[in-house]
Amino acid sequence: MDGYKLCALGEDGKRTVFTVGNVKIGEDFTVIAGPCSVESKEQIELSAALARQAGADILRGGTFKMRTSPYSFQGLGEEGLKLLRDAGEKYSLPVITEVTDTRDVDMVCQYADIIQIGARNMENYALLSEVGKHDVPVLLKRGSDATIEEFLESAEYILKEGNEKVILCERGVKTFGTYTRNTLDLSCVAALKTLTHLPVFADPSHATGRRELVKPMSLAAEMAGCDGLEIEMHPSPDEALSDAQQQLSGPELAELLREVRVTAVFRDGLDLY
Amino acid sequence: MDGYKLCALGEDGKRTVFTVGNVKIGEDFTVIAGPCSVESKEQIELSAALARQAGADILRGGTFKMRTSPYSFQGLGEEGLKLLRDAGEKYSLPVITEVTDTRDVDMVCQYADIIQIGARNMENYALLSEVGKHDVPVLLKRGSDATIEEFLESAEYILKEGNEKVILCERGVKTFGTYTRNTLDLSCVAALKTLTHLPVFADPSHATGRRELVKPMSLAAEMAGCDGLEIEMHPSPDEALSDAQQQLSGPELAELLREVRVTAVFRDGLDLY
Amino acid sequence: MDGYKLCALGEDGKRTVFTVGNVKIGEDFTVIAGPCSVESKEQIELSAALARQAGADILRGGTFKMRTSPYSFQGLGEEGLKLLRDAGEKYSLPVITEVTDTRDVDMVCQYADIIQIGARNMENYALLSEVGKHDVPVLLKRGSDATIEEFLESAEYILKEGNEKVILCERGVKTFGTYTRNTLDLSCVAALKTLTHLPVFADPSHATGRRELVKPMSLAAEMAGCDGLEIEMHPSPDEALSDAQQQLSGPELAELLREVRVTAVFRDGLDLY
Amino acid sequence: MDGYKLCALGEDGKRTVFTVGNVKIGEDFTVIAGPCSVESKEQIELSAALARQAGADILRGGTFKMRTSPYSFQGLGEEGLKLLRDAGEKYSLPVITEVTDTRDVDMVCQYADIIQIGARNMENYALLSEVGKHDVPVLLKRGSDATIEEFLESAEYILKEGNEKVILCERGVKTFGTYTRNTLDLSCVAALKTLTHLPVFADPSHATGRRELVKPMSLAAEMAGCDGLEIEMHPSPDEALSDAQQQLSGPELAELLREVRVTAVFRDGLDLY
Repeated sequence: MDGYKLCALGEDGKRTVFTVGNVKIGEDFTVIAGPCSVESKEQIELSAALARQAGADILRGGTFKMRTSPYSFQGLGEEGLKLLRDAGEKYSLPVITEVTDTRDVDMVCQYADIIQIGARNMENYALLSEVGKHDVPVLLKRGSDATIEEFLESAEYILKEGNEKVILCERGVKTFGTYTRNTLDLSCVAALKTLTHLPVFADPSHATGRRELVKPMSLAAEMAGCDGLEIEMHPSPDEALSDAQQQLSGPELAELLREVRVTAVFRDGLDLY
Repeated sequence: MDGYKLCALGEDGKRTVFTVGNVKIGEDFTVIAGPCSVESKEQIELSAALARQAGADILRGGTFKMRTSPYSFQGLGEEGLKLLRDAGEKYSLPVITEVTDTRDVDMVCQYADIIQIGARNMENYALLSEVGKHDVPVLLKRGSDATIEEFLESAEYILKEGNEKVILCERGVKTFGTYTRNTLDLSCVAALKTLTHLPVFADPSHATGRRELVKPMSLAAEMAGCDGLEIEMHPSPDEALSDAQQQLSGPELAELLREVRVTAVFRDGLDLY
Repeated sequence: MDGYKLCALGEDGKRTVFTVGNVKIGEDFTVIAGPCSVESKEQIELSAALARQAGADILRGGTFKMRTSPYSFQGLGEEGLKLLRDAGEKYSLPVITEVTDTRDVDMVCQYADIIQIGARNMENYALLSEVGKHDVPVLLKRGSDATIEEFLESAEYILKEGNEKVILCERGVKTFGTYTRNTLDLSCVAALKTLTHLPVFADPSHATGRRELVKPMSLAAEMAGCDGLEIEMHPSPDEALSDAQQQLSGPELAELLREVRVTAVFRDGLDLY
Repeated sequence: MDGYKLCALGEDGKRTVFTVGNVKIGEDFTVIAGPCSVESKEQIELSAALARQAGADILRGGTFKMRTSPYSFQGLGEEGLKLLRDAGEKYSLPVITEVTDTRDVDMVCQYADIIQIGARNMENYALLSEVGKHDVPVLLKRGSDATIEEFLESAEYILKEGNEKVILCERGVKTFGTYTRNTLDLSCVAALKTLTHLPVFADPSHATGRRELVKPMSLAAEMAGCDGLEIEMHPSPDEALSDAQQQLSGPELAELLREVRVTAVFRDGLDLY
């Protein structure tokens, strides 16, 4: 625990809660939804409208993409940030987007209500320290082979610089398995709830890479104790420029969120943690 | 799918249901509970009483143990089977126990209502074929590095010999992680529900190896779609001869099952698969 | 070390050496070669001739196959054992073959000079104990997710019953990687040489699943300290009934063994362990 | 191969060779040695003297450290770079050091003959692109769960920006194993030699985390085909501020390099690739 003392759940059991838009993260069950990438004004506005209609709390959209191949679509950059911001404002949704370079943090913070650190950058300590110096909330995704301790130690880099608004997000780990894209590790969610006061989210879209598994894994993640979900949604999933096979359509998102919301209410009646 | 055609879920969506004792496996949410090992007449009788009281459906108890070290407790063998059978009858609980040797299958079938094939024997095809020739139901645990396809192909070895009463049980896979004993792969549970007509169970006790994670992972497994749970329980967990740290006490089991049962009812109201 | 005290390398550094045919295993660098499966009299005789010509020490050929799918070729059984034995005798090569069922051990021991326990059965403790009661040497393959300690503990099951002629064989572990079939873990070979007095072999054919990597990984395994290699060879690799893409032809085996033998001589001049 | 066309080995079999100091990387077998971290003027000067005496070609020393815990020693920063540079010049050794932040690349390039991208930053595409715009050679370490394809695609990010002097370095992957720190994947080295024209190195120190395994794994890596090694050495290993248990002393390094050099000569007489 020496490596993550600021993150550690204290004996008083007090948990971090902070407000983004209309939602108290860490207290209200929170749903982030939106496309993997901001592709155009039309696409992100339609996404925002559909996310709003489905009842999501926060709009996501990537503009600096982390793609394995340098020849894949790399995102629209700052132009995309403006489109995301405008779409969010038009539909009263706070926005979250990823930052990938220490030199971009100031700029991204001007547009984003939450900044995301992707799994590939979970151990980019220079970037973690830099976002720690800002006071925009950070959603930190678990590296695809990070242990629970390493995950908490990465969060500690952010808290140590003064930024205490950190969300931890489990998004699947690499295993020998090939049926799903990664293996969503819900015991990590459950373990984190016993170890840290920070809010814990899960991303069933990236983890499974399969549309038909998003619903059962979303509900399972809720019962494992997560405080929110990050779900990929696209107005026309089959035309998405990245990760098409895991993105839900607007109506699919709406149907999912109905069951997610009722499950959150049901869960509050149980004595989980 | 060529390797598991008998296991494959057909277009009609028909699922396997069979009766053990008072429970329709595959239809009624089923809880198997009991100690890792049968240790004595007193211990297994008390376990049966507590399992019954907590509302479990089936009593488990190992008598031929698969222990990594040859110097660990290896189980009571046939004497243990008699004790298990007697305890089950006394408290009206069907019993499940593991078989580990092709030469023992006939004998174990005389005592057990369900025979278990452990994770270490998931690819012991001689044993799978042998239990396939009997008509006692089989609970097949997933190997700790078996892919979903390999798991189904192992089940196919049993069905191919004529025994169609097979339960698949996810019990955690090996990853780089060390915080939990293994990593419970609930996306495997969800995927199996879309791939096979066989009932799917989960074992949160072996998977996590941590008492405090058994409840959240049990409820999460339910929401991922499983048809039953296998839970370790011991009258005096701290004195258990094996796997002490993951066994629940009788009262802990009773408390867990209350929430498991209400969650099963809640889940039936959703549209999962 | 409590779990593998009989296997442990003592302070005197004494290592196990035993004779099979003309080779002192544990002292002479030993090459086992032959097809994955015995397919016919002609195929195994031609394999024996080619193995002999290439300078291999021991002929391998599977007759009870462990195939993931029940619909794959399962081997010729006892008839295959006779063919293997005859081919070995005709070309003066001892033979090794796999046993997969406790009920077959007596029978297989009548034909085999070394019996092999496959990776899938490394934790089949009933089978390990049974071969421990015979006095035919055993080659035990590492399970695809077995730790080094678990591997040694499995060997201990054999030694504990009295059979001290055990060879440990590293054959690749499962990782997230997909380029090679498995990941040959040569640090396991090196570590075993520091932990146990038993001979240590490596199987670069199964581990890589790629013909072009067999040579570099064979030579690398030698320098990591192994005492022998198990190599797949087939008279007509492209017509093999199993694992075609990793089997060498006779001339390829001969070319490989020239470099393997000269490397063994070179290595003896270094001070490795 | 679409994702790594600039890295791909062409049909002409031409391989990248470039000069650093007195060594032709990709042609001469190259040894990088030095401490994990630059700790003081005395420590790095003594390291340089010992590395030179042992016959190493390049001096390493970390000054911007990537430590899992924010409370571990983080390196001396630019002051450390000057000390490293001075020590290298005093003993006529080119120097290699890690860069971790896009904002530091210009500055680090003023001191380093080779810049290293650590495993944790293998997917930090912003950093890869930035070093691609400089013309200092780059040693890129494989991420601890990167596939071979992902590794090559990361290198492609550097080449795409114009910097063609890239070394790929295998340093162990995460598996279920715990005996060694990571699992050195020498089949990755062998596979890379068949896939890319870039030089391939291996780091047996970080991979094994065990001093006694550094020699066998160094020699094994050579036979798998690597073009060089990166070895940790410290004047007083037991006093090292990081990774003490895997660092060799000066005399241990000298003894290792004698066998490494003779093995390189031996290997050149074989027909490996």
